Amino acid sequence: MAPSLLTTPSQALALAPGAAASRVGGGGGGSARVSFPSGRVQRRGALGMRVRASVAIEKETPESEPPPTFLREDGSGAGSGSVRERFEAMIRRVQGEVCAALEEADGSGARFVEDVWSRPGGGGGISRVLQDGRVFEKAGVNVSVVYGVMPPDAYRAAKGEAGKNGAAADGPKAGPVPFFAAGISSVLHPKNPFAPTLHFNYRYFETDAPKDAPGAPRQWWFGGGTDLTPSYIIEEDVKHFHSVQKQACDKFDPSFYPRFKKWCDDYFYIKHRNERRGLGGIFFDDLNDYDQEMLLNFATECADSVVPAYIPIVERRKDTPFTEEHKAWQQLRRGRYVEFNLVYDRGTTFGLKTGGRIESILVSLPLTARWQYDHTPEEGTEERKLLDACINPKEWLDL
Amino acid sequence: MAPSLLTTPSQALALAPGAAASRVGGGGGGSARVSFPSGRVQRRGALGMRVRASVAIEKETPESEPPPTFLREDGSGAGSGSVRERFEAMIRRVQGEVCAALEEADGSGARFVEDVWSRPGGGGGISRVLQDGRVFEKAGVNVSVVYGVMPPDAYRAAKGEAGKNGAAADGPKAGPVPFFAAGISSVLHPKNPFAPTLHFNYRYFETDAPKDAPGAPRQWWFGGGTDLTPSYIIEEDVKHFHSVQKQACDKFDPSFYPRFKKWCDDYFYIKHRNERRGLGGIFFDDLNDYDQEMLLNFATECADSVVPAYIPIVERRKDTPFTEEHKAWQQLRRGRYVEFNLVYDRGTTFGLKTGGRIESILVSLPLTARWQYDHTPEEGTEERKLLDACINPKEWLDL
Repeated sequence: MAPSLLTTPSQALALAPGAAASRVGGGGGGSARVSFPSGRVQRRGALGMRVRASVAIEKETPESEPPPTFLREDGSGAGSGSVRERFEAMIRRVQGEVCAALEEADGSGARFVEDVWSRPGGGGGISRVLQDGRVFEKAGVNVSVVYGVMPPDAYRAAKGEAGKNGAAADGPKAGPVPFFAAGISSVLHPKNPFAPTLHFNYRYFETDAPKDAPGAPRQWWFGGGTDLTPSYIIEEDVKHFHSVQKQACDKFDPSFYPRFKKWCDDYFYIKHRNERRGLGGIFFDDLNDYDQEMLLNFATECADSVVPAYIPIVERRKDTPFTEEHKAWQQLRRGRYVEFNLVYDRGTTFGLKTGGRIESILVSLPLTARWQYDHTPEEGTEERKLLDACINPKEWLDL
Repeated sequence: MAPSLLTTPSQALALAPGAAASRVGGGGGGSARVSFPSGRVQRRGALGMRVRASVAIEKETPESEPPPTFLREDGSGAGSGSVRERFEAMIRRVQGEVCAALEEADGSGARFVEDVWSRPGGGGGISRVLQDGRVFEKAGVNVSVVYGVMPPDAYRAAKGEAGKNGAAADGPKAGPVPFFAAGISSVLHPKNPFAPTLHFNYRYFETDAPKDAPGAPRQWWFGGGTDLTPSYIIEEDVKHFHSVQKQACDKFDPSFYPRFKKWCDDYFYIKHRNERRGLGGIFFDDLNDYDQEMLLNFATECADSVVPAYIPIVERRKDTPFTEEHKAWQQLRRGRYVEFNLVYDRGTTFGLKTGGRIESILVSLPLTARWQYDHTPEEGTEERKLLDACINPKEWLDL
């Protein structure tokens, strides 16, 4: 297979949903779709240096039916009961359950359209998108499995063994490192300005031993999170959402919720606005300093918490009456969502640079958004209250 | 003054409009506006390397009236008849003329709101924005003057003297290089889907001699362009627009139009879509290989061509009847505009990273935009015709 040379576990996993799906059957003829040429990606760094990333994404093949598994049948970690296998089974189960719950909440009879694809060298994915339902403006739920190769320096850096400035430390030279990545990724944009946007993403990453250093240990990481982006603060909803996240965390480690809540506030930060895009939740990345079974169970618990954390909020708010002003504010906040995703989100920006399937990457963008020059909500308004909470993240629970 | 350490003439000049304006008085209380901290900007390059840019933008001061000039009174190129002085006078005159023509075309009595600002160490700007007029959804016309300091390597790279990979070539060591930049920058988004969006930007950049190498020559560059982004191809309009660009070019050099037309097609390229954002025009950057007087006259001619190139098109199309489908397609194309500006545009991305005034930088974004999953216009439609021309740039004139 063509190699995917990635630089960090996060980039590989961020890539997984981005590289997903050749086409969902819902929208017009696909013949005009432009395939993005694989190849070497160059871009100019902040100091004008040319930073080169070697990336070649293998072309995907549409499939008519989801296969039982996207794992390779070469025994490399695909054995019964392996973490890879159990993680893939989990994200596919959760994809089905989340989509079913969303269709029921939408209540319009609108259904997710599904696209299945595979890659000749192994891996593939299932993209599901519901567009223009009664409740949801745009809802995408994707799973994918990626096999790739990362440069040895990135492998060493990810293990924390790299020298200063990412240069390789001394030690035996290693070759490119094959990796496995699997993830579920979703953004849900409701129509009603009082029903919040939800994003969640859970991912597992594993390397093989480096090819030229067979004795080196296999590495693995978990990453992910679930975060809420309302246009208006309804405390009952935000507290419910955060308390479900905390419950999931507390089953595993009392330090998780406060740590991952802060990580979430730090990650979803629109630096040029000095605002977060929303009211947070939990986020973690490159997590491997706990028992692997424990983290698999934790990721599973988090993914299983999406429906109980979110659906009750949507049910309560999907029919709330609203004005044009409420809608305009929601649209301004959606503009912030676009800014975050296009400028900062690691999965999106990496996907755009490496030639992932563009419609799958940008399904996270809202159907509509707005940029009004110099708009600042007045003191004392509900809009200002939301903005203040995005500027100064709050603790929503009594810890 | 606090130094602005920039890396290329283009970045400096791109910064000029981005760093403009403390506030335009049109929209709500400004007291909540968050000031962006100056400081060192870090970001991760494509290979995970941390690339550091030293940038500190001096805080601007609002002014009640435009001063006669934003040039420093220290005699450094500000003498009567200098290129700096004549360029500043030109962009300020053009700003006034373009705004007057736009107000007249809008015909609603809507007026540009103006914000004037200066920096203690020299420089400043005038931002003018017309929002929600009868014809224009959002129109911004900014001029600015920036004094800053660029690292010596960037100076050498810009002069074409740098060694491989941007490293300094042999020769005497030079210190930071003070520079001067001035520019006019504008994006005009009409409401009617048959009236195209226009962007233009003209800029002049000049360095002093390096501080530690006083014998080194002073450098200067011109940059800019004017480009058209319609949602529908009306050949009469596109040909008119390009022919005005060509006329301006042909007065100076017969090679200019074909060369700058191609440069424009190459620059406004949305790589992840394999599409241009529109139907081009002219674009040039870092231009100094012609007589300086000639290029000043050329930039002036180009800037003076904005009104005759654009206003007749707007007049013809501002009241064209349209359907919801036309509007939805315009909104999808506006989404592409957002993608280009946030992901690729050098001025925007540099401005976001360096803490320029965010509302001035993002005034280029449309009031509203749309992202529809997997939308591909059908063969034979007007929408498809536009898309095809964005994928395969056409020659609009018989050359």
